[in-house]
Amino acid sequence: MPAKELELIQRIRRSAARSSAQLVKGIGDDCAVLAVPRGHELLVTTDFTLEDVHFCRKWHPPDAVGHRCLTRGLSDIAAMGGTPRSAFLSLALPHDLPQRWVDEFLRGFLKLARKYSVPLAGGDTAQSPTGILADIMVIGSVPTGTAILRSTARAGDVLYISGTLGSSVATLHELRDGKNPKPAKHPRHFYPDPRIALGKHLREKKLATAMIDTSDGLSTDLRHICDESSVGAVIDAAALPALPGDEGLKFALHGGEDYELLFAAPPNRRIPAKIAGTTITRIGEITRSRKIKLRTPDGKSHPLPPGGWQHFA
Amino acid sequence: MPAKELELIQRIRRSAARSSAQLVKGIGDDCAVLAVPRGHELLVTTDFTLEDVHFCRKWHPPDAVGHRCLTRGLSDIAAMGGTPRSAFLSLALPHDLPQRWVDEFLRGFLKLARKYSVPLAGGDTAQSPTGILADIMVIGSVPTGTAILRSTARAGDVLYISGTLGSSVATLHELRDGKNPKPAKHPRHFYPDPRIALGKHLREKKLATAMIDTSDGLSTDLRHICDESSVGAVIDAAALPALPGDEGLKFALHGGEDYELLFAAPPNRRIPAKIAGTTITRIGEITRSRKIKLRTPDGKSHPLPPGGWQHFA
Repeated sequence: MPAKELELIQRIRRSAARSSAQLVKGIGDDCAVLAVPRGHELLVTTDFTLEDVHFCRKWHPPDAVGHRCLTRGLSDIAAMGGTPRSAFLSLALPHDLPQRWVDEFLRGFLKLARKYSVPLAGGDTAQSPTGILADIMVIGSVPTGTAILRSTARAGDVLYISGTLGSSVATLHELRDGKNPKPAKHPRHFYPDPRIALGKHLREKKLATAMIDTSDGLSTDLRHICDESSVGAVIDAAALPALPGDEGLKFALHGGEDYELLFAAPPNRRIPAKIAGTTITRIGEITRSRKIKLRTPDGKSHPLPPGGWQHFA
Repeated sequence: MPAKELELIQRIRRSAARSSAQLVKGIGDDCAVLAVPRGHELLVTTDFTLEDVHFCRKWHPPDAVGHRCLTRGLSDIAAMGGTPRSAFLSLALPHDLPQRWVDEFLRGFLKLARKYSVPLAGGDTAQSPTGILADIMVIGSVPTGTAILRSTARAGDVLYISGTLGSSVATLHELRDGKNPKPAKHPRHFYPDPRIALGKHLREKKLATAMIDTSDGLSTDLRHICDESSVGAVIDAAALPALPGDEGLKFALHGGEDYELLFAAPPNRRIPAKIAGTTITRIGEITRSRKIKLRTPDGKSHPLPPGGWQHFA
């Protein structure tokens, strides 16, 4: 292993060193060793964060890249109603990347990890032939049999979304237009907070029949639920917690990286307007017909094709 | 998600579809859901496989790249004495990569996965700005408290190595020299077999005090054991199961990617000459002094600095 990689591992190891009841052995062996709470099942998710695909160095400060990298994994755990237990980070870096960039990336990553008490338990490092490559893996758990799946929505269920939709892609458009939006003023894009507490509440109270996080955009993520559950859906355009105007609607339907939770619930289940500090909005219903439609204020229904997040394509 | 990525996921999903008692929910949700055998701890490992770092397209057939990618993860599980349970594959591919390359990569990957009954339970896909990027994660398990660590070697322990050392890097030199070695005739380089059965046997019979796999090269991997255990070691040059000559010795000491198991055992413990079909060779001892030395046939000892695997650097 090249000296630079070894040094990176040592630095990650020092900064990640923290006690955790579940982490029997962290960085420094062939594998991490983890205890799993009795009566729990594991949740496992992996997500790439690639330069010029998921972020641009000129737009995204390194601590935001680190934060967003971990959010991608934590949000998947939230979408199952789970508790995150450990994170693993594989990082391939160009040889000429300034040390400061790596330090700031790790600072952003570890700050979010601390917030959710998730130890960085391992990973891999390599020199990248070109561009920064990160792959995050998060392991979580739920009591056996209680994970909220995508495949269990039923016709007649009501659809809900947490928070608001479209802010992240709106900031991306500002970046593209050279408007230089300040990261601190646009946290929904630069520092999105995964809805861990909300997901857990929905699981504990058995409120949701199916759930997904909106990482690819509502129209695409809803399609995943419908495909896996063999159902369709109708969305009310006027009900969406969107930014104003036609563009706001487009961002809400097709923008990605909001990391909100989209879930279905039985029609007779009372869903609070706010859960774990997050507003919950009723946006439509699950239908027997496998089509996905958008109902506009004039009462008409239009096909809603998946037009989700194409990253920077 | 671009159509091409979605199609790739569907194809992986179809080819990976198989039943597994431990895999509650595989590809197709926000997370995979895994059952953990009662009384077991988890083992988790991640390893990059990057084009022009860990393989070259012109040298390595795609099925060998897929095989080697999974071997990297399985070998880490073997080095803890564990049983592999699930694999997760993150794959970023250049847009112009021929479909055939991906098919062959998956064929090699899944053939090895089947051999060890390891379902491909999830992962991520993306378009790579340049070059093929894979990140493998393998989850395994061991009965609680029985994982064989790097950090528990004791002065006086005897050091053993499985199989032979240096074959993989010898083939790499042939590739570099334009000698066109046939993959089928050089399986140790192109299709290395992780020592799962050996690792498991050593754990079950409580034969080893510490263990690591030789992925970075003996001198570097031995250094990891010594550093983590706060001990030193003496290696007998004449005892190494190496290819002939000075070059053979160099390859055995510093070549990487042999995926053999290096382990320490108490001096009074009888270690069979063959375990699970693999020869076991005594190659040295663990010492109290923290230095790592090489004993040559003339009886002299020389410092043995870590000169391990530098990939293609």
